[in-house]
Amino acid sequence: MHQATHTLVVATKGRGLVEITAEVRHWVAAQRIATGLLTLYCRHTSASLLIQENADPDVQKDLVAFFEDIAPETRAYVHDTEGPDDMPAHIRAALTQTSLSIPIISGAPALGAWQGIYLFEHRRSPHRREVVMHLVGE
Amino acid sequence: MHQATHTLVVATKGRGLVEITAEVRHWVAAQRIATGLLTLYCRHTSASLLIQENADPDVQKDLVAFFEDIAPETRAYVHDTEGPDDMPAHIRAALTQTSLSIPIISGAPALGAWQGIYLFEHRRSPHRREVVMHLVGE
Amino acid sequence: MHQATHTLVVATKGRGLVEITAEVRHWVAAQRIATGLLTLYCRHTSASLLIQENADPDVQKDLVAFFEDIAPETRAYVHDTEGPDDMPAHIRAALTQTSLSIPIISGAPALGAWQGIYLFEHRRSPHRREVVMHLVGE
Repeated sequence: MHQATHTLVVATKGRGLVEITAEVRHWVAAQRIATGLLTLYCRHTSASLLIQENADPDVQKDLVAFFEDIAPETRAYVHDTEGPDDMPAHIRAALTQTSLSIPIISGAPALGAWQGIYLFEHRRSPHRREVVMHLVGE
Repeated sequence: MHQATHTLVVATKGRGLVEITAEVRHWVAAQRIATGLLTLYCRHTSASLLIQENADPDVQKDLVAFFEDIAPETRAYVHDTEGPDDMPAHIRAALTQTSLSIPIISGAPALGAWQGIYLFEHRRSPHRREVVMHLVGE
Repeated sequence: MHQATHTLVVATKGRGLVEITAEVRHWVAAQRIATGLLTLYCRHTSASLLIQENADPDVQKDLVAFFEDIAPETRAYVHDTEGPDDMPAHIRAALTQTSLSIPIISGAPALGAWQGIYLFEHRRSPHRREVVMHLVGE
């Protein structure tokens, strides 16, 4: 058994989902681990991770709209020193994932046919986000 | 240290929680790993995983009702090509878990006394769902 | 490669977030694992885990208020045998995390600069909560 780690840097364009499936698959394939466990970890509290449908881009629009509605910028927040979009971003991150673990079978993440891996940017402006990947297996 | 993987196939009866604790425990016990890490991964974007109370079945009714209300079918979604229950299902899956990791202590998952492992079906009609299990330890 | 496990007991003061970052870091450091994977698991269904901002305490106030509003005690629940704050607690736990996995890099959890690890108590009264930690690596 052995391990590998790598930090993926993801440039976001402001609020929305950025698919990282190809980058993740590429790095996993290069580690030559047939069976194992992949963990993705988002090092931020105003961005998060999400497994979602990768077929119809409209799904992403509806997801973004839903999270905007459920934790709106217009809500009265105590924390507002980092801008009106910061506290809603923390809530939306809390409602989704900071870490994701995906088994590796036959050298690849065991994603379902319609599953993509996304970084979900919750701030309005573009950011540079870090996703730490850890792989253990043989 | 060694690993094991297995795919659990779960037949759902439409919207609701299906407890899979017994199946998971049974498979883990057969691997004869005393200390380790169990990861469950749901290969779908309209079903998800959840650890919840296994004592009072009414908890499940309230959970289902809550998720129906928070992401109702009556909301205006852009994505509607797969039926009115599809986009709400994606949102409900985003709000719960695609992966769960549970330490193995003394050969069994370290679940709390009142914890059960559930597959949460978010579509109206019955589906066949796949949960990939990965175990590493010794 | 080797493993270690430990159960952290967290005393809560009722509803709110309790930071456990220092305890987790301390235990991880003592295991002398340079590269690995840390998993935290909450053995309860009315408390949960959350990675959140550790800079401004107001973020915690807004998070608590948000989860009180989204799953209020005043909602009509079928399950009410354990008090009016129990079913909302189950829902708030379902919306956050039961397990968290964090890569270990250079002997420490790969947390971002502003990330803290929190136990989120969802019941009104103080509780004694167990968080199982599992570490694998070398």
